[in-house]
Amino acid sequence: MERLGKQTIKFNTPPTITEASSIVGPKEAQGPLAKYFDQCLEDEFWGEKTWEKAESKIIKENVNTLIFKSGIPIDQIDYCFAGDLLNQCISSSFGLRDINLPFFGVFGACSTFVESMCLGSVFIEGGGAKNVVCATSSHFCSAEKQFRFPLELGNQRTPTAQWTVTGSGASLLSSSGSGPYITNITPGKIIDMGIKDANNMGAAMAPAAFDTLITHLQDTCRKPSYYDLIITGDLGYIGKDILTELAETKGYNIKNNYNDCGVLIFDKNEQDTHSGGSGCACVATTFSGYLYKQLKSRKINKILLIATGALMNATSSQQGESIPGIAHAISIEN
Amino acid sequence: MERLGKQTIKFNTPPTITEASSIVGPKEAQGPLAKYFDQCLEDEFWGEKTWEKAESKIIKENVNTLIFKSGIPIDQIDYCFAGDLLNQCISSSFGLRDINLPFFGVFGACSTFVESMCLGSVFIEGGGAKNVVCATSSHFCSAEKQFRFPLELGNQRTPTAQWTVTGSGASLLSSSGSGPYITNITPGKIIDMGIKDANNMGAAMAPAAFDTLITHLQDTCRKPSYYDLIITGDLGYIGKDILTELAETKGYNIKNNYNDCGVLIFDKNEQDTHSGGSGCACVATTFSGYLYKQLKSRKINKILLIATGALMNATSSQQGESIPGIAHAISIEN
Repeated sequence: MERLGKQTIKFNTPPTITEASSIVGPKEAQGPLAKYFDQCLEDEFWGEKTWEKAESKIIKENVNTLIFKSGIPIDQIDYCFAGDLLNQCISSSFGLRDINLPFFGVFGACSTFVESMCLGSVFIEGGGAKNVVCATSSHFCSAEKQFRFPLELGNQRTPTAQWTVTGSGASLLSSSGSGPYITNITPGKIIDMGIKDANNMGAAMAPAAFDTLITHLQDTCRKPSYYDLIITGDLGYIGKDILTELAETKGYNIKNNYNDCGVLIFDKNEQDTHSGGSGCACVATTFSGYLYKQLKSRKINKILLIATGALMNATSSQQGESIPGIAHAISIEN
Repeated sequence: MERLGKQTIKFNTPPTITEASSIVGPKEAQGPLAKYFDQCLEDEFWGEKTWEKAESKIIKENVNTLIFKSGIPIDQIDYCFAGDLLNQCISSSFGLRDINLPFFGVFGACSTFVESMCLGSVFIEGGGAKNVVCATSSHFCSAEKQFRFPLELGNQRTPTAQWTVTGSGASLLSSSGSGPYITNITPGKIIDMGIKDANNMGAAMAPAAFDTLITHLQDTCRKPSYYDLIITGDLGYIGKDILTELAETKGYNIKNNYNDCGVLIFDKNEQDTHSGGSGCACVATTFSGYLYKQLKSRKINKILLIATGALMNATSSQQGESIPGIAHAISIEN
């Protein structure tokens, strides 16, 4: 691998995304991407007694599906990189405690999926691993309970609010294979522009996506048009507009080939999700379900996947703090 | 780098630990290692209004000290790997939001420091970075509030309980330098033996330390006596005894060269910390303060540093769950 510019690493023998897998909840199963997911659940509990246990089951079963689909024996998988939104990442730790793989816990809020793929691909390209699993999850009910209000309160949601995706997305990266390949990674910096509204995550995270996008383009000497698709993790409608405008101020026109997973995963008119989807599983299921299949079937061949995260918690907002954002980008190419 | 055995990576051009830095709170400043820390605070708030803000300030100032002491310009540092115990790792995210470095959030509970060094050293050895910062923090007051009881309740502590270290430890890893070197890493698996007592973390984590220790020794074909010191992160007195006994069942005698940072950092008789120290900062400050100086002065030359973490949260314990443990090991040699 070699360093490009300020923050980017270019892989000379790029890791392959051998397989991807996704499970989603009932609301996502009514959305426009439903047919692309491996499994759609009928309810939010999936036979478990709590939302947290349900979320753990979702990531566990999804990783099992991933490994099964890949056909790679578990003893040839070297490491697992995973994390989630729950306090102390318990969805991943509990869901994956029986997987019997060396485990790296990752916390990047909703950027966790791409952060895990950055780490995993460096392990592979560096010769430290042949196959790694990257996984994440989120759950609307456990996230609302933890970050905002108990669902039982029936609080009204603000128009800027996003809807946390229930589900898990996971990918298996390998040192050899037929692609799609992770060709570059641009891990992002923490950017805090002072946004304090925990119901407007798109605005809080857009400046981080902007910083990572521009840095990536400068580091790689690429124009936005190099990519068939530039796609952010979960900026939603508001954040998507902000990023488009911010890019324009630097002379980059991304209007023709930019979209956001939070915009794609729900139907704006039918599903009442206000500013769109969010949560670790938003980018993870949209990639693992929809985008990965588009890449495999060569309907698209070059994407820049930028996962965004808001690095706050309930206590920090109660203490009057603003919301730091982060965004990690990877180029995926056939 | 090359793979050894089941879980270990051996570095052929091992990264150097160029610098290490530590800040501790007032209780640690009264302990036996006080003279080794870079800075000892006089109170738990350090001029901030909340414990969480104080913890963020501690990691921020410690990383600033680390970089200053190293003499390496910030623009030659490529990535920062950091995490902590607070929900959504806010100590690290808020403390390091102004550092202007690409940031990888890591969650390994009290194993975070060594997990970060595992990740950072793979980036360096693989050619993805020349210099990286690895940092963590914990704070007695914010941890008690979040995981157990508000301090104001004045709850009595059980004899098996450990005392969360207030402080931050950080290291700067580089591709070249005069050592000490990180020669091997053995990232650990999640091990859950069914312990449910959140006041007996040593017992919950010892089986993970055991699994990683034995795997490391088998992968590297080393005996315990290869090391001048085998040292765990924060098993405390109870966990230390359990690990010693478990090792014996497999025929490994570690009685002569094994110790635990949770045992070293407080005075058992004078400081009323029951089973010893714990928290991300336990291993991080003990290493960055005490052990690093022992290595630099060649009083010891080969250590196996095994950081242990308990991957639970308050909700999982309330829901009747057991406590999964994890342990990551690195060999550090002159």
